[in-house]
Amino acid sequence: MTDYKTQNGGEFDRAAFESLMKRKGFYWQSFEPHGPVKGLFDYGHPLATLEAEVLNVWRDHFVRSERMQELKCSMITPYNVFKASGHVDKFADFMCKDPKTGEILRADHLIKDVIEGRLKSDREARGEKVEETVDDPKKKKKVSKVAKTAIKLDDEVRKEYEFLLATLDDYTGEDMGKLIKKHDIRSPITGNEVEDPVSVNLMFQTQIGATGKEPAFLRPETAQGQFLSFQHLIEYNDSRLPFASASVGYSFRNELSPRSGLLRVREFLMAEIEHFVDPDGGKKHAKFARVRDVKLPLLSRTTQSEGGSTPTIISIGEAVDSKLVDNETLGYFLVRIMQFMERIGVDQKKLRFRQHMQNEMAHYAADCWDCELLNSYGWIECVGCADRSAFDLSVHSKATGVPLNVREAIKEPYTIEEWQAQLDKKAAGPRFKKDAGSVQQALDNLSQELREKLSITLEKDGKCELDVPGSSAGKVELDKSVVSIAKEKRTVTMREYIPSVIEPSFGIGRILYSLMEHSYWTREEEIPRTVMSFRPTVAPIKVLLVPLQKDARFAPVVQDLEDKLDERRISFDTDSSGVSIGKRYSRNDELGIPFGITVDYQSLEDSTYTMRDRDSTKQVRAKLDEILDAVESMVRGRATWSDIAARLPAFESKEDKAE
Amino acid sequence: MTDYKTQNGGEFDRAAFESLMKRKGFYWQSFEPHGPVKGLFDYGHPLATLEAEVLNVWRDHFVRSERMQELKCSMITPYNVFKASGHVDKFADFMCKDPKTGEILRADHLIKDVIEGRLKSDREARGEKVEETVDDPKKKKKVSKVAKTAIKLDDEVRKEYEFLLATLDDYTGEDMGKLIKKHDIRSPITGNEVEDPVSVNLMFQTQIGATGKEPAFLRPETAQGQFLSFQHLIEYNDSRLPFASASVGYSFRNELSPRSGLLRVREFLMAEIEHFVDPDGGKKHAKFARVRDVKLPLLSRTTQSEGGSTPTIISIGEAVDSKLVDNETLGYFLVRIMQFMERIGVDQKKLRFRQHMQNEMAHYAADCWDCELLNSYGWIECVGCADRSAFDLSVHSKATGVPLNVREAIKEPYTIEEWQAQLDKKAAGPRFKKDAGSVQQALDNLSQELREKLSITLEKDGKCELDVPGSSAGKVELDKSVVSIAKEKRTVTMREYIPSVIEPSFGIGRILYSLMEHSYWTREEEIPRTVMSFRPTVAPIKVLLVPLQKDARFAPVVQDLEDKLDERRISFDTDSSGVSIGKRYSRNDELGIPFGITVDYQSLEDSTYTMRDRDSTKQVRAKLDEILDAVESMVRGRATWSDIAARLPAFESKEDKAE
Repeated sequence: MTDYKTQNGGEFDRAAFESLMKRKGFYWQSFEPHGPVKGLFDYGHPLATLEAEVLNVWRDHFVRSERMQELKCSMITPYNVFKASGHVDKFADFMCKDPKTGEILRADHLIKDVIEGRLKSDREARGEKVEETVDDPKKKKKVSKVAKTAIKLDDEVRKEYEFLLATLDDYTGEDMGKLIKKHDIRSPITGNEVEDPVSVNLMFQTQIGATGKEPAFLRPETAQGQFLSFQHLIEYNDSRLPFASASVGYSFRNELSPRSGLLRVREFLMAEIEHFVDPDGGKKHAKFARVRDVKLPLLSRTTQSEGGSTPTIISIGEAVDSKLVDNETLGYFLVRIMQFMERIGVDQKKLRFRQHMQNEMAHYAADCWDCELLNSYGWIECVGCADRSAFDLSVHSKATGVPLNVREAIKEPYTIEEWQAQLDKKAAGPRFKKDAGSVQQALDNLSQELREKLSITLEKDGKCELDVPGSSAGKVELDKSVVSIAKEKRTVTMREYIPSVIEPSFGIGRILYSLMEHSYWTREEEIPRTVMSFRPTVAPIKVLLVPLQKDARFAPVVQDLEDKLDERRISFDTDSSGVSIGKRYSRNDELGIPFGITVDYQSLEDSTYTMRDRDSTKQVRAKLDEILDAVESMVRGRATWSDIAARLPAFESKEDKAE
Repeated sequence: MTDYKTQNGGEFDRAAFESLMKRKGFYWQSFEPHGPVKGLFDYGHPLATLEAEVLNVWRDHFVRSERMQELKCSMITPYNVFKASGHVDKFADFMCKDPKTGEILRADHLIKDVIEGRLKSDREARGEKVEETVDDPKKKKKVSKVAKTAIKLDDEVRKEYEFLLATLDDYTGEDMGKLIKKHDIRSPITGNEVEDPVSVNLMFQTQIGATGKEPAFLRPETAQGQFLSFQHLIEYNDSRLPFASASVGYSFRNELSPRSGLLRVREFLMAEIEHFVDPDGGKKHAKFARVRDVKLPLLSRTTQSEGGSTPTIISIGEAVDSKLVDNETLGYFLVRIMQFMERIGVDQKKLRFRQHMQNEMAHYAADCWDCELLNSYGWIECVGCADRSAFDLSVHSKATGVPLNVREAIKEPYTIEEWQAQLDKKAAGPRFKKDAGSVQQALDNLSQELREKLSITLEKDGKCELDVPGSSAGKVELDKSVVSIAKEKRTVTMREYIPSVIEPSFGIGRILYSLMEHSYWTREEEIPRTVMSFRPTVAPIKVLLVPLQKDARFAPVVQDLEDKLDERRISFDTDSSGVSIGKRYSRNDELGIPFGITVDYQSLEDSTYTMRDRDSTKQVRAKLDEILDAVESMVRGRATWSDIAARLPAFESKEDKAE
């Protein structure tokens, strides 16, 4: 049990929650009849529909309202793209093999599990009450088996273990290998010694075509496709900055031992924004003034390094002014992220922004804040909001020789003297044929220093060598008959630069999972009943129709109601089962249907209906059109239940109480 | 040039269309800077947004309105699933290798290209005017090179070639190998002889985890995930039939030589419905009466086999009554598909339903109709609507031992005598341990014939062997101490059956491409201008704001308009560039923005604005709120331009004419 509480302050029982998820068909492991596969899940109707609703809000809140360019990029990605981006070399975890069983264990998980087990055993030996902390029930069993005979540790060893756990994230593969040897860490499943940690890439590999010559990966993020579309994006924006692209799409991560249910899976939906901005001029944002006074819970790097975990509530204006948040654009997005979370129904008390520690960020990042949501697994990163600087565009430009930059006319042209490297076209054409363009491109990409160096070599040796990415041989030899390199005066009329990228990156599955935990609570009645309090705007099903009892006279009225809801494009379920109204309501509260409309005998006479609010269980009664108008305005987000309850007459009934 | 015409009867120039697609950022080849990859495309903002709008209509039209269960299944799929479904063995094309270059050629394409080349050469030799028919410009060049010296064919050979082309689809790999030898068919690129055709599976292969023990594929259809979720689906539906699941998701096909732009790609979005229905009782549909009189263009198997290609316009009631369409459910879906196409703006004159020929259908299919849309590539299958019978659920059930069936209480129970096979639980538990359940399951799955056979073997040999899918060894040995098999009387109270599946399967990319061609036409003015006439309800961007000219006084008014459109959640673009209003309108007509609002000097005085309709170029003028109400009602599909034009005063202007 964690100390995570439900929205009405009750205990959160994860087993009961998961049982509801399963019983009501929210999600399950994929391909179950063939034996389930870890880390792959199917979403049933409630969750698939919740996802579609949340994505519609996301698109409306970001793409439409911020006038971004939505973009859809391919998932299957050629090897060269991820070689250039660094994923081939760095997107990896360290693994240890159990040489006797061939089983693969993630090195950091292995160390953590074993050391935690020993510390727990130590606490037991010293007579402390031991709480369960490991979440995988299978693993828990095994760990406690090993720890059966409680073993007390030396004070020094205990301290070493505690320090080790706190700093584990910083260890390299080699470090972990030494740790494993030093502390005799073995597989908790078999007790075998394990092999040294090796780096295993986490991308799914495949190949394009049948020749075996086109290795490819399933992308681990949507971002690279957006960067490689930069030329199209900026053209669409009439060559002006800033602008943002946005992409909703799947990414993949070949986790070696997936844990934590929907939070760490092998196939996941992301919604990523790439906001391209001029690095000069402080990364201002045109709409920042509109959000200046919005207050956010910010957990700064400084607070964390002092061991604190309580965020400061501070206006984003103040945070940017004091440089706590690096720039306006980053700050604007933090606000918009929080507003998005509020709009879909995330509990704002379970939201914070945590700044990355210096060693946690990629080397090129200027600043990075995670939007974390609290759920029963702890504070979970659900949105990363990083300033990636010019890193990605630069590496792809360098790898391909294609300029991914911005050219801007400058207001006051000026003259400079610099090294120019120019092919002689008449001589270069016949010599380099189709590569001639790439050779000139390679020359253009050379820095001033390299041009000067090349010029010296050319003078001395009469020839020089030049790397030409994309050409047949990868490099060419140049001599004076084909190239001239000289210091010349040039009037500068254009400014060329690679823009910075600010990237808010949303893990949709984690947001949905947290939202479901936030929406789950127990109504305290004689028999406690669980409720999923999805907002009417995102609830998977909007209305429940309940004919009072099985009576043929209700059928045409229900049919008429169904047709009217269909005309208004409002989703509904009809529950005509024989059980009591109260039971039908509470069974559908678990699906999170916000409103119920009862068809009773009075409805047949005067065409009035009661409408019930899921969260308060209050009811109102009115004519059909009034009821339908009320429902429509609530599910479209134009009114709340209290607006409606203030307008339509209340209706008292005992039906909804305990059975 | 095909004889495909635009909606106003004009010539369709594919090169001009593709140039617009590129210029306006509708789509491009993925990862261009690293060298484009065939068959992978990125969608830019106009097309990505059009897709999102079309999917919203699809969800509303099918999932919500028909109360289907939306479902999201994993793309990465373990080997066993596609082994059971037949895809591992049958989802393949035949390929020939050029042994000297290693290049892979699709056997049927190779034969077609070479034979067509020879026939063309023959026509040239006989002095006929030869039209270009091959669509790949690269290939065209090469083919015409080979055909440079026109060679006349014998009449007999010509007839043989023509017959061969007409029947090529029916050839096996072996047949094609013989053909290639017989007619000396060589690689048109190198002139080399090619190796015999071999079957190459078209699924992208990968593996789950790092052990190499979990081979997997990227799914080639979403359907299998839905079938394997059958138990969850039917539970969600309170064990009642019929019901339908629906899934919008990506599928993959490792095409070896992708052609035809967006029509044949390696990664594509599908929207698939699986409607589960009792095979007994004629597959009736509850809402069929509502659509009985709707007329459809049906191109029957009979018409096709007589060489006809003109569909019959016939009401679906008549078509089902006469058994032209197999059953009501299939018929109901054909109508709903046509209505969906109408709703998103597909030209109804370019739509037909073509029945599959008997040899075109899978052996298990009861009937199959394709919804074909006409575009410049010809009639293209965009939706397949097949009755897959009980095939898929049966094969997975057989492969896994997990029953994927329906159990229904029957009204009048009756008694039968049949073979019962029952484990002795006391003896079976210790012997089979965790497999005991699977063993009983395997016994339950045995047919009456097999039970009888087993009983005889057991009597004779004292033991027998039983295949147990999912158990450790795959089979067990049974003897009399652990199993009893006997003929017994049993009262039948339940009916068990595997439902039939009717599957409408939508290729979203093909629908979008056809819709774009249908929306594209040229306005005949002094300078002809192209227009994309997307319906206001699905248009990627709804409104264009055009301040009359660069004047600082317009800025706050434009800002106010932008805020008001944002409040109403209507997407817009603002074009403040210096060019004339007419030019700005026509340039945005290419993006398909349905309405334009001009801010002029009069707006500053009396807060009235002109609104322009893209298709008619007519304008109205009214107060801001009236204009915004009009726009909102049109983009939400509650009014059309003619409704608005009848209500608001017309405005005459020369602005919109040619520049």
